[in-house]
Amino acid sequence: MHPVTEAVLQGRKFEKILFKKGLEGEQFRTLLSEVEQRGIPYQFVPGEKLAFLVKGAHQGVVAYMAQLDYVELEPMVEKALASRSNPVFLMLDGVSDVRNFGAIARSAECAGIDGLILPAKGGAAINADAVKTSAGALLRIPTCKVTNLRIPVFYLKEAGFQIVAATEKGEGDIYDIDFSAPTAIIMGSEGSGISSGLLPLCDFRSRIPMVGQTGSLNVSVAAAVVMYECVRQRIRKQI
Amino acid sequence: MHPVTEAVLQGRKFEKILFKKGLEGEQFRTLLSEVEQRGIPYQFVPGEKLAFLVKGAHQGVVAYMAQLDYVELEPMVEKALASRSNPVFLMLDGVSDVRNFGAIARSAECAGIDGLILPAKGGAAINADAVKTSAGALLRIPTCKVTNLRIPVFYLKEAGFQIVAATEKGEGDIYDIDFSAPTAIIMGSEGSGISSGLLPLCDFRSRIPMVGQTGSLNVSVAAAVVMYECVRQRIRKQI
Repeated sequence: MHPVTEAVLQGRKFEKILFKKGLEGEQFRTLLSEVEQRGIPYQFVPGEKLAFLVKGAHQGVVAYMAQLDYVELEPMVEKALASRSNPVFLMLDGVSDVRNFGAIARSAECAGIDGLILPAKGGAAINADAVKTSAGALLRIPTCKVTNLRIPVFYLKEAGFQIVAATEKGEGDIYDIDFSAPTAIIMGSEGSGISSGLLPLCDFRSRIPMVGQTGSLNVSVAAAVVMYECVRQRIRKQI
Repeated sequence: MHPVTEAVLQGRKFEKILFKKGLEGEQFRTLLSEVEQRGIPYQFVPGEKLAFLVKGAHQGVVAYMAQLDYVELEPMVEKALASRSNPVFLMLDGVSDVRNFGAIARSAECAGIDGLILPAKGGAAINADAVKTSAGALLRIPTCKVTNLRIPVFYLKEAGFQIVAATEKGEGDIYDIDFSAPTAIIMGSEGSGISSGLLPLCDFRSRIPMVGQTGSLNVSVAAAVVMYECVRQRIRKQI
């Protein structure tokens, strides 16, 4: 309890904090209130789960420290706009497989993406495996977490970005998109794609053309195909 | 020994056959001679390896039946040419990770590739995991195995195909290639890329442009980026 409280008060970053169900006492209530104020994701879980995670004694609190030095949305966007006129961001709406997530981060860095935008909850664990699968790219590409992906969508639209959703339910194909403008690309989760609350907010809903019977690409492959179409167009236009 | 000999004589397909080192006797020599004549990959291994693989008694022979109904190179190419004037084949020079291989097969089927060409030795195991990762695509896309990848390269060149190697050491980028011609795309292994015996035989050695510091894409991602550039060009030209 105490070391976690200390780390929270020092402003350290966390992936999430797990509390044992039924936890009480003043020290706990102080910690919980700090956690809530700082927007750190937390969850109540059965004692058995904590016993499974932790060898030895614990006081009902397990905190996952952040692997990455996350950045805030607004400075990330401003910094990107200061360095070039047409940045590209990649938003992942619930990609949950660690290997897919790592592979996407690797491709994003190779494609010169200016930053990743992830939901605070519901995405893949950003752990050592993710960093390894990304070939270290996760440590180099600016990454921010937001409580709700609608926030960066509204913010980026306001800042002049076009929002391009890659979705099997797309109206046109990704090759119809002009990627020379400042762009945010959104990829959905492995199981259910982009959430229905987000899809209508996008400026374009675009398909990757499918020829065979399989019907869909792996999400890490699909993300790369879209990002590289952006790379291709910009090389051709020399921007 | 006997059931494996029967299956070989019936012309069943195998991934490979393992023999215990030091195996002797007439039955074994008959089997080995049939295996060699039919070009079935085989290997001599220590008895401990077989004991690890097989529960219970065995006679020093373990055979891996083929998961797929492999096809022969020439009929595969002829069939593709009969159905369209500009087929595309994908050759994998030693991609060894089962998940990468499965993902590539999935992408290949989505991109309308006419067939996969694999080396008989040195590639990923084509097992149930590969089929699962491919989302079943491996069961639908024609696949052939060859003892040496130089054979299909020469054969396809003779048949009017251009051979495009995707390699980090490429001279131009993949966007300079005209993919409207009949094409074979070659991807190299995760560790060392396309083998030096094969690379000089290719008509084009092309890079995928890299912006960041990571320097290379995952091979399953890279394969999809190249195949989808082919898809894009053909959609645009309506061929």
